[in-house]
Amino acid sequence: MRDNRKRARELRVAYIGGGSRGWAWGFMTDLAMDGDMCGTVSLYDIDRPAALRNQRIGTRISAHPDAAARWEYEVADSLEGALRGADFVVISILPATFEEMRSDVHLPERVGVWQPVGDTVGPGGFMRAMRTIPMFVEIGEAIRAYAPDAWVINYTNPMSLCVRTLYHVFPQIKAFGCCHEVFGTQKLLCDMLAREYGIPGATRQALSTTVTGINHFTWLTRASYGDIDLMPLYAAFADKYYDSGYDEGGDDNWMNNHFKCAHRVKFDLFRRYGAIAAAGDRHLAEFTAPWYTRSPEEVLGWKYQLTTVDWRVKDLSDRLKRSDALISGAEDIALKPSGEEGHLLLKAVLGLGDMASNVNLPNRGQIPNLPLGSVVETNALFGMDHVAPVFAGPLPGNLLALVARHVYNQENTLAAALACDRKLGFTTFMNDPQMAAVPVPEGQRLFDDMLENQRAYLPGGWFR
Amino acid sequence: MRDNRKRARELRVAYIGGGSRGWAWGFMTDLAMDGDMCGTVSLYDIDRPAALRNQRIGTRISAHPDAAARWEYEVADSLEGALRGADFVVISILPATFEEMRSDVHLPERVGVWQPVGDTVGPGGFMRAMRTIPMFVEIGEAIRAYAPDAWVINYTNPMSLCVRTLYHVFPQIKAFGCCHEVFGTQKLLCDMLAREYGIPGATRQALSTTVTGINHFTWLTRASYGDIDLMPLYAAFADKYYDSGYDEGGDDNWMNNHFKCAHRVKFDLFRRYGAIAAAGDRHLAEFTAPWYTRSPEEVLGWKYQLTTVDWRVKDLSDRLKRSDALISGAEDIALKPSGEEGHLLLKAVLGLGDMASNVNLPNRGQIPNLPLGSVVETNALFGMDHVAPVFAGPLPGNLLALVARHVYNQENTLAAALACDRKLGFTTFMNDPQMAAVPVPEGQRLFDDMLENQRAYLPGGWFR
Amino acid sequence: MRDNRKRARELRVAYIGGGSRGWAWGFMTDLAMDGDMCGTVSLYDIDRPAALRNQRIGTRISAHPDAAARWEYEVADSLEGALRGADFVVISILPATFEEMRSDVHLPERVGVWQPVGDTVGPGGFMRAMRTIPMFVEIGEAIRAYAPDAWVINYTNPMSLCVRTLYHVFPQIKAFGCCHEVFGTQKLLCDMLAREYGIPGATRQALSTTVTGINHFTWLTRASYGDIDLMPLYAAFADKYYDSGYDEGGDDNWMNNHFKCAHRVKFDLFRRYGAIAAAGDRHLAEFTAPWYTRSPEEVLGWKYQLTTVDWRVKDLSDRLKRSDALISGAEDIALKPSGEEGHLLLKAVLGLGDMASNVNLPNRGQIPNLPLGSVVETNALFGMDHVAPVFAGPLPGNLLALVARHVYNQENTLAAALACDRKLGFTTFMNDPQMAAVPVPEGQRLFDDMLENQRAYLPGGWFR
Amino acid sequence: MRDNRKRARELRVAYIGGGSRGWAWGFMTDLAMDGDMCGTVSLYDIDRPAALRNQRIGTRISAHPDAAARWEYEVADSLEGALRGADFVVISILPATFEEMRSDVHLPERVGVWQPVGDTVGPGGFMRAMRTIPMFVEIGEAIRAYAPDAWVINYTNPMSLCVRTLYHVFPQIKAFGCCHEVFGTQKLLCDMLAREYGIPGATRQALSTTVTGINHFTWLTRASYGDIDLMPLYAAFADKYYDSGYDEGGDDNWMNNHFKCAHRVKFDLFRRYGAIAAAGDRHLAEFTAPWYTRSPEEVLGWKYQLTTVDWRVKDLSDRLKRSDALISGAEDIALKPSGEEGHLLLKAVLGLGDMASNVNLPNRGQIPNLPLGSVVETNALFGMDHVAPVFAGPLPGNLLALVARHVYNQENTLAAALACDRKLGFTTFMNDPQMAAVPVPEGQRLFDDMLENQRAYLPGGWFR
Repeated sequence: MRDNRKRARELRVAYIGGGSRGWAWGFMTDLAMDGDMCGTVSLYDIDRPAALRNQRIGTRISAHPDAAARWEYEVADSLEGALRGADFVVISILPATFEEMRSDVHLPERVGVWQPVGDTVGPGGFMRAMRTIPMFVEIGEAIRAYAPDAWVINYTNPMSLCVRTLYHVFPQIKAFGCCHEVFGTQKLLCDMLAREYGIPGATRQALSTTVTGINHFTWLTRASYGDIDLMPLYAAFADKYYDSGYDEGGDDNWMNNHFKCAHRVKFDLFRRYGAIAAAGDRHLAEFTAPWYTRSPEEVLGWKYQLTTVDWRVKDLSDRLKRSDALISGAEDIALKPSGEEGHLLLKAVLGLGDMASNVNLPNRGQIPNLPLGSVVETNALFGMDHVAPVFAGPLPGNLLALVARHVYNQENTLAAALACDRKLGFTTFMNDPQMAAVPVPEGQRLFDDMLENQRAYLPGGWFR
Repeated sequence: MRDNRKRARELRVAYIGGGSRGWAWGFMTDLAMDGDMCGTVSLYDIDRPAALRNQRIGTRISAHPDAAARWEYEVADSLEGALRGADFVVISILPATFEEMRSDVHLPERVGVWQPVGDTVGPGGFMRAMRTIPMFVEIGEAIRAYAPDAWVINYTNPMSLCVRTLYHVFPQIKAFGCCHEVFGTQKLLCDMLAREYGIPGATRQALSTTVTGINHFTWLTRASYGDIDLMPLYAAFADKYYDSGYDEGGDDNWMNNHFKCAHRVKFDLFRRYGAIAAAGDRHLAEFTAPWYTRSPEEVLGWKYQLTTVDWRVKDLSDRLKRSDALISGAEDIALKPSGEEGHLLLKAVLGLGDMASNVNLPNRGQIPNLPLGSVVETNALFGMDHVAPVFAGPLPGNLLALVARHVYNQENTLAAALACDRKLGFTTFMNDPQMAAVPVPEGQRLFDDMLENQRAYLPGGWFR
Repeated sequence: MRDNRKRARELRVAYIGGGSRGWAWGFMTDLAMDGDMCGTVSLYDIDRPAALRNQRIGTRISAHPDAAARWEYEVADSLEGALRGADFVVISILPATFEEMRSDVHLPERVGVWQPVGDTVGPGGFMRAMRTIPMFVEIGEAIRAYAPDAWVINYTNPMSLCVRTLYHVFPQIKAFGCCHEVFGTQKLLCDMLAREYGIPGATRQALSTTVTGINHFTWLTRASYGDIDLMPLYAAFADKYYDSGYDEGGDDNWMNNHFKCAHRVKFDLFRRYGAIAAAGDRHLAEFTAPWYTRSPEEVLGWKYQLTTVDWRVKDLSDRLKRSDALISGAEDIALKPSGEEGHLLLKAVLGLGDMASNVNLPNRGQIPNLPLGSVVETNALFGMDHVAPVFAGPLPGNLLALVARHVYNQENTLAAALACDRKLGFTTFMNDPQMAAVPVPEGQRLFDDMLENQRAYLPGGWFR
Repeated sequence: MRDNRKRARELRVAYIGGGSRGWAWGFMTDLAMDGDMCGTVSLYDIDRPAALRNQRIGTRISAHPDAAARWEYEVADSLEGALRGADFVVISILPATFEEMRSDVHLPERVGVWQPVGDTVGPGGFMRAMRTIPMFVEIGEAIRAYAPDAWVINYTNPMSLCVRTLYHVFPQIKAFGCCHEVFGTQKLLCDMLAREYGIPGATRQALSTTVTGINHFTWLTRASYGDIDLMPLYAAFADKYYDSGYDEGGDDNWMNNHFKCAHRVKFDLFRRYGAIAAAGDRHLAEFTAPWYTRSPEEVLGWKYQLTTVDWRVKDLSDRLKRSDALISGAEDIALKPSGEEGHLLLKAVLGLGDMASNVNLPNRGQIPNLPLGSVVETNALFGMDHVAPVFAGPLPGNLLALVARHVYNQENTLAAALACDRKLGFTTFMNDPQMAAVPVPEGQRLFDDMLENQRAYLPGGWFR
């Protein structure tokens, strides 16, 4: 009768992409700091040495004297090995290498398409999806076979398509996708309250917001803090900082940090569309016509940065060094919350505390004017073995026109990837708003070259 | 910028049906006990003396030394007078008199239809709707004209049709319907946990349930308490007490109390349908084929009672005496929570604390396999100036077959009432499951007689 | 480039249930009389001798000197043998024997349920579905495997569930279901025009009607002949003959013919519901509350007949004698159109002439207020390799309440049959309107006994 | 009982925009040549002298010795005068003058947007909608008031929005929109059959096609002629003439005729999208990214023409001269079919012959993956007082992505026009694919200037 409580002490978590440098460390730390759950994390990675290193780091974290829970870390030899018996599955993989990512992000520059991230939509996101979807087909089939009752959290991009693929392969899967981009905008609202309106102490969790849209192009159409309506406050805030941008302070302003921004794109979207776009500017800019990405100069003017692959290479090298330090003990383990919510959602579905948060789920009507089945991001209620989306209402007409376009592309991208369909693939690739000004013949050459650049990671069907 | 806070100190509540004996007293007490809000309640009733008496009772309650808030009570001369400037509207009216109710409840006995309540569905519910819908058309039009931004809580039966009518008349209305029947079943689960499973202390609010269906025929398809799944526990509970019924104790067992029951109908439905019917047995029994209502003996066998109009007459007389005592001071005012949630929902939409509860709202997809627009009962999240249904999921196939029938009847009942359409009215009247065994000619005579019995309260269109 | 024309000369038709006595003869005659197509009919029947007899009869029909086309007839040893290479598949089977049908039709009489036909809905239709659905699962899987591109026409009852099962098993199937019940009502309208209004010469094909509903409970919500609106004419007609019934003449009036009726049920439904029910009264009476079937006397009063299984046994014996005569030549082959349309629909999908007719197809929105995917009957346009339903519009509210109930039962019946689910099966069985007055315990015993009576034809899952 | 026949001899047709030079003459000729109907045409035009001239022309046509029917022509003083008693309403107006059209078509050239027509979508179509929608609000309200039972045929552009506005104002209106662009593509298929495949004699009416999409961006996803599948034939045809274009012959090749084209756009769309785009290339080119309209040179390369307003001014001057000649008798009246189908659809709804054709109607599910209520173009069946769309099926994914975008714009354009909402208007204006490469500030100036240019024809709400 009380299996869950027992289960919470003997959990098995399968971590696919368990060699992750960085994100995994935060997750392992969050687990160590929470006394309500313990068990075993099985790390699986096609880069087995990386998983072995994380096993050692995880074991060190778990052994920290202040840890509230002791977790075992093991390395699995196969997807099956990781998944058998799993209560939870976490998926956080890097599809292919930086070389493929370099093609995704930078090759389109030759036709004048500058992508700030290139992993979600745009030509880069499309191409990344072509190689990622087959991987998620494999993962989804393995979950169906070996862990059909497990709860599955995805962190991999392109988020919408990864979750969509899992449900396509295994419609009964209990999967959702988590992303912290909305959190950042919620924190911006708290910051605004404190600094602009003299109302300190607001936390992201204390805000009441209606979240709607799709991952990385998510919107707040309503926001309040207690009995304070935040929408008029944000309108004044956006006007005030429209030209200068808004600096959240600290050393990490947008000039120094690839992930930071001055929110000018966000403010511009608010002034034209009347809703709060809830992601970093570098993500938001990729979903519209090339208003914010026309050239590196235009990007500079909007005060955010293009995240180059060179920067990523450098950043990884730093993280590898940190990995060495964590293993060797040269760096002390610090028990500091990661800011992610994954471990809290695990607790919620275990029945250890209901909670609400924004997640990516198939549309069951939570956004009634988007197609059913497409993956959308809204709030949901998490309870014991249960997640229920909260009705977000129809997208306002002007946002619908922006968002629906990507939802249709999402469906066509999936279909093209599953069928290795060059015709459907190319029309979808060209339908991305970032490609709107590219002539068809140039687009065709780009499409062919980008496919060729990741040939090693694509099914053979593409090259017959 | 902080209007709401100010507003919470100067609220105006229009109470339509403000002469109510009983329910109003509880509401006024709940208001008095809550220090977060205060303001004025404007009582409107076509029985103006009753409103005046409640004004005196309300004023006494508000003057109680332990009251946390002081409310003013006034009596309005007209709907318009009550509504102008209202922040909230509470509707709790008795449509017509006990004589019409006597026809609703007891006349169908002549064709072998025994109705335990007769105010929701069945021939009695249909007829009550015929006179109530025009009243709600008037109320809805007045709200549209005089208080279009007010939040509106309905407590009147037939609940679904009252709320449906308000939205029909004024689609932008911010109305919902509250009913405590689900609360009773949630309390039964808490009682079961304590007495059968040795887990004391559970409260209704601490349960996590998926609520779905329509008012008085609502279902819990999922229920947990912390990490305990209540469904298997309830299955064993229903089996154990299937024959004997379950007595929640106290003096008020089903033999002595018109509203109590031994839950045998609920248990029978669970064993056949696999979900927890969440209303009193006397309500539930009215929604199915005449399995539980075939005769007074059958009712006795299922261990609940028919609520006769004679009993209601007697009960009202008791309440009138109590009214005298409350006015004269012969009875002391006791500040005791009513158990209703209306005042908490007011606070939530004021931004004084988000909460979730089950309410009656138009279907926007929260139950995706019921028609959009029909009024259904599910959980919803209440926040500042905002209510969002929680996705309940599709009704399971066997429940859908039971519930959808009443939803179609709901729509046809509304259409018949609005158009004074005897043909549509009669086919709808005959489509009620309680009428299934009645021959058409007998049904026709009953229909005609029941309309005639409430002629004074119907639009002239019926008798042309 | 012109494969179809060639194909029309070398067609392969798989006839499943090819031993049929009667219906098959009509189909073979229709084929012989049409010069636009020829080819081979492969007869498959689990009663192989019956198929062999029909092979001889078909060959004789094809050899008739006036035949416009010569068809080959062969007998297949297996479903696979019949289906391989088939352009068309015709399914017309008798699931089990008259003994099972006797249980379907007559056992429910013990609880007061008198079924005029007992093969579509009601307890008999439900039980017939339990044994037929597994057969159609097998047939659908065979079509998917061996003839996925063939067009499939079903004539077997319960029609809706047979077609529904085929699409469940093989969603890409090109199947539809044909039934002549609507034709009969259309002919009644022509007869009315000639005899009551002096407008001779109307034919069924010349009427313009909106057909909507489900098989055997189909409705005409609009009917015209040229510029004549037939609805007011039918209203007067229904009034005139309401009491007496209407006799279409000939020897075959309702007293002598198990399939004829005096249309009193149809007239009664029209007067209450305002639309023309389009099936024989014996079918219509099974879909409503027991208004027309309460007792054999009630049936007599409505002037139609209960089709007993004894009559069917006798009728089959007559048809077997006729089969002997057709084989031996004691009876001459007569080339007379059957009145069915199957062969015309084959021609239409071959591109030999577009046509419109009423058929049973999954709901794609042709009746927008019924669930998508359920099988409904409306008009459709047939063209080359193509069938498109015509939009029938939403069912009027009062009809919706009657029809939707059976659609929900249809879905639950399928689910119960696929899963051998006694709980879902029983609640569905009890939800049939004919069962509304039956107490649950009596219903349970009837359900168990009826399942037991066809144990030999059910999957083992039912009896575990 | 036979009102319709009588009615067909005494019809009243209200012709709104009855001063039309050209289109009206064809319609009057079609009426004169058809012996099944006669009556009165009431011409209404805000240019009353033009209506008076057409009255004289119509009277001459009707008096032609070979005319099969004599129609009366009168000029109405007001919308009300034209509409009272009307059985049919024809709407064919020119909203504003060539000066406003000059702004629509040519002003966007300053931001590099070259519009071949500029009356449907794109910046020109949007601006035309802003002034046309208020006119259709007025017309719809007048029809609701004075001729609610009349059948209404619209010929005005922007077609989708005109029809959408009529249904918005008066949801029970019996309106549809007719356009001959699909006819042209069907004729191209007939021409292809004759000239390329040696199959002469095919007519547009003899083809069987699935028509789907929206006006001027309509698609054939299926086409056959008898038993010949036209899709593979068209594929070969498109390949063969991809580079050269296809010339239908006569003097009117694309170089000399503003409405002709060489179908290169159509062929390019087919090769990429796999369906036959069914409108003139100059219309099709406006619905996609600026692939075919980047510059006048690009247009030339695709072998169609930009229809300049200068050409329109010249063309009107020619038609005015012809008008003089028709009135004076200098030009003989020629009874030659116009090729339009309006008069046939009138006959069909009178019950004088069912027919199928492509028309613009609100989506009731005929294209299930487009929003309900938006105006789409598919086949429909016309019968007595009845039009029913034929199910076209879901748009294929790649077409859906192209078409849905315009459907969302359609809804937002309507909402902006009704509310004079500059914010919504501008985001919608910028969401048009032709505007994709235009920077926001330039777009804003263009938007403001184009509104200003038609200030005289806009509601005052725009300029507050």
